[in-house]
Amino acid sequence: MIEIEPVAYVRSARREPVDDGWDAVPARIELVESLGPECLEGLAEFSHAEILFHFHLAAPEAVVRGARHLRGNRDWPLVGIFAQRGKDRPNRLGSTIVEILGRDGRSLEVRGLDAIDGTPVLDIKPVMTEFLPRTPVRQPAWAHQLMRGYWSGYLV
Amino acid sequence: MIEIEPVAYVRSARREPVDDGWDAVPARIELVESLGPECLEGLAEFSHAEILFHFHLAAPEAVVRGARHLRGNRDWPLVGIFAQRGKDRPNRLGSTIVEILGRDGRSLEVRGLDAIDGTPVLDIKPVMTEFLPRTPVRQPAWAHQLMRGYWSGYLV
Repeated sequence: MIEIEPVAYVRSARREPVDDGWDAVPARIELVESLGPECLEGLAEFSHAEILFHFHLAAPEAVVRGARHLRGNRDWPLVGIFAQRGKDRPNRLGSTIVEILGRDGRSLEVRGLDAIDGTPVLDIKPVMTEFLPRTPVRQPAWAHQLMRGYWSGYLV
Repeated sequence: MIEIEPVAYVRSARREPVDDGWDAVPARIELVESLGPECLEGLAEFSHAEILFHFHLAAPEAVVRGARHLRGNRDWPLVGIFAQRGKDRPNRLGSTIVEILGRDGRSLEVRGLDAIDGTPVLDIKPVMTEFLPRTPVRQPAWAHQLMRGYWSGYLV
């Protein structure tokens, strides 16, 4: 067992988990009291950050330890939990690259964070091009379909 | 406190943490006994996966909770721990996008995993272009310099 402690919390206008329209939701990441603002020093020189977080509202008993239909819908393909990015996964960890809009002391303003208000943040990392794929990215057609409205969907 | 359990372990020829030359090191990710091979079903349809892991050899007492010079070297800039990707960070979580070379049952063969043999893996996610930066990526010059030999450095 590895023990993890939140380093920050998400402050967002979105309070319910929904699937789509995340880009329209502004969000702030606020460091916990025990971490000083100097932890964020220099981060705003980067355009993007990677946010690791905990799907804290995902029910432990709903965690899939095998394969399932995407979004729990039989119309979507049946794939392994590690071939999808949904919340009902072992360890319930999320990871999303966000755009950095600004930083003010111990608070980071971001766009494109698909985590609701109150979500515990476990790490913040700068995005470096060297850590992005260095060979062409290929993915099955269903992944494009699934993501169609994710960032700018009609549920905004 | 959030409790996390390894979902897999890294098997690699590299047994010591070093800074550079990671692309030349082949690695395998092997699921723990309690997770069935069906967890990986469909993952090889993706070219890349994101691997979340634990820097298990990083000493808890070395964790930086503020700013430090990069790589602990005063010749590099002083920046916040969340503006760098090094191992001595709160929660000691690593996150790396790797190329998927193949999958055999409960084992995933990858390239570009900067984690040594025995590293606990905490999550495996498919890389979808929709989860990569959707606006231009900018980073300070030091980040490019720092990464110069990281993947194909002379330490190979």
